Amino acid sequence: MRIKGANYRTIWFESNVVKIIDQTKLPHKFTIKNLKTVDDAINAIKAMEVRGAPLIGATAAYGMVLSIIEKNDQSYLEKSAQNLINSRPTAINLKWAVDRMMKKLSGVNSERILEIALNEASKICEEDVKFCKNIGLNGLKIIEEIYDKKKDTVNILTHCNAGWLATIDWGTATSPIYHAHEKGIKVHVWVDETRPRNQGANLTSYELNEEGISNTVIADNAGGILMQRGQVDMCIVGTDRTLSNGDVCNKIGTYLKAVAARENNVPFYVALPSSTIDWKTKNYKDIPIEERGAEELTHVEGVDKNDKISKIRIYPKNSKVLNLAFDVTPAKYVSKLITEKGVCEATEKGLRELFE
Amino acid sequence: MRIKGANYRTIWFESNVVKIIDQTKLPHKFTIKNLKTVDDAINAIKAMEVRGAPLIGATAAYGMVLSIIEKNDQSYLEKSAQNLINSRPTAINLKWAVDRMMKKLSGVNSERILEIALNEASKICEEDVKFCKNIGLNGLKIIEEIYDKKKDTVNILTHCNAGWLATIDWGTATSPIYHAHEKGIKVHVWVDETRPRNQGANLTSYELNEEGISNTVIADNAGGILMQRGQVDMCIVGTDRTLSNGDVCNKIGTYLKAVAARENNVPFYVALPSSTIDWKTKNYKDIPIEERGAEELTHVEGVDKNDKISKIRIYPKNSKVLNLAFDVTPAKYVSKLITEKGVCEATEKGLRELFE
Repeated sequence: MRIKGANYRTIWFESNVVKIIDQTKLPHKFTIKNLKTVDDAINAIKAMEVRGAPLIGATAAYGMVLSIIEKNDQSYLEKSAQNLINSRPTAINLKWAVDRMMKKLSGVNSERILEIALNEASKICEEDVKFCKNIGLNGLKIIEEIYDKKKDTVNILTHCNAGWLATIDWGTATSPIYHAHEKGIKVHVWVDETRPRNQGANLTSYELNEEGISNTVIADNAGGILMQRGQVDMCIVGTDRTLSNGDVCNKIGTYLKAVAARENNVPFYVALPSSTIDWKTKNYKDIPIEERGAEELTHVEGVDKNDKISKIRIYPKNSKVLNLAFDVTPAKYVSKLITEKGVCEATEKGLRELFE
Repeated sequence: MRIKGANYRTIWFESNVVKIIDQTKLPHKFTIKNLKTVDDAINAIKAMEVRGAPLIGATAAYGMVLSIIEKNDQSYLEKSAQNLINSRPTAINLKWAVDRMMKKLSGVNSERILEIALNEASKICEEDVKFCKNIGLNGLKIIEEIYDKKKDTVNILTHCNAGWLATIDWGTATSPIYHAHEKGIKVHVWVDETRPRNQGANLTSYELNEEGISNTVIADNAGGILMQRGQVDMCIVGTDRTLSNGDVCNKIGTYLKAVAARENNVPFYVALPSSTIDWKTKNYKDIPIEERGAEELTHVEGVDKNDKISKIRIYPKNSKVLNLAFDVTPAKYVSKLITEKGVCEATEKGLRELFE
């Protein structure tokens, strides 16, 4: 998608390095960063320079490529794989991408290993782009239906960033929105700020602005009254891990919106590529919920009046905080899942019919 | 209550000026500010140097006193009354306090008018202190019951600041907590950050810290998962306007917590002095919901690494925002109302039995 009119993807391989957009600098600065080693890739994931389940997966895949470039050695590769998987606990794509790479690379001792790795990482990216595009086309039908009935701007609420910046291109939750916009359907997006890291304001509003799509940032607290007032026609969010029963684990705060949506008869959609499905975990209580550092809450980064990036403490000095990064929305609050293969009920039956 | 070990109220009259704690500077700076004219009082209310329904009411009452000190003239007094009422639209106490003052002052042309005004403003404050204390004693019983059953720390979630800083002393939502703490009951408070103005972090956590009460600040997004996990025993919040049918209008985001509480069988209490009851408005849709400036969302104030107060922009430069300050929680989500006269159902019957 576009930044200042030029087309980008979120990750690409060029002259033996992996290039990413450093998302911790957005929206104040657009910086392309080089990852040269597997540790660079791990650090980029941990520091959330790349984030979003699909993009984390792709970065991990390219991390494996970098590991081979550093040292073509099976035990180093295995260690790299483990370290990549451990870099963040909640999103399932990370493990999915690393496992997929290992399946191709395990036991390969020839010179061709780099070529195989590059090929597979690139394939993961291309697939993700295709999946996200299809999610968009499948979700577009839902937006079209609302538009046909309402004959006026469709108001869509989204939480966090499940935009193209969270994937390789198109995004998951935003892909139907981009496709609707391309088709001339009037859409307006309510963008949850998404504390503590403000990815809604910093990334979703930013990328929608760059694509010229009407959007309004709101405090995470505001979605309820907007739904109560009939100012939200639908919600679409992403997911970092989808259980086979339809439960979705996504950015902290998703659950509150889903519950409010059901109370107000607002349809609540979750958009996902199949790579986020965890077929194994049966109970959402078994999903590890990442707890991140206190400073994400107590401090905030922005620009001062001279446009210089600056970080300030906003909390009382001695206040204790708890920073949980994700929550789980049980399937009963999810109207439908929008996947690359089609739209289905948030149930085991719904998912298995599409993916088995 | 205490700040750095010394006892304070939030507002008092001394040497012909009204003294307030400038709450926009908290938690980074403790500043006492003088209000000398009715316009000073209006500006303090508008800029939220004083905030919280009961304290806004008290400030308006003292604003009337300042109006008389400026100019003992009935038409000026009437103009002052109107300007005070218009300074913020949602909290009902503002109008209640001004009307109460006008009832005493209207038509009084004697020299005694200042004495009458001072007496009434002081009475409003003393009553509020007594009411808040009684709210605390009534709410204490609820906390005690949970403690007796659980025999372990009672975890209480609160939103925004309905603490002593929102009233004259004790607070509404916090008063039961302070009373429980005084009685030796172990309590721990989950403090919603409360975007966009962060009054949870800046004021509630601050005042709980000063009283030595265990508390943890969380993003507004986090309450849902904590309830899901059984880590919240009860919620208590304040209200800026309570309809006679039990609907409560409080800080934006209250509604989301109330809905999640009901979903998770967590009791949701609203603490209020009767001065916040609006007996006239029948439908919550008729409550004016204040829309505040964009900068409250797009910019944040804090301290830099040299402890200097600094304001930075955190949003993309060209992002549009909507800043609604309140939402309404319909009575069906409210377990009970905790008032100065006792605890009642959030229904017309419940309220009338206590207050008629």
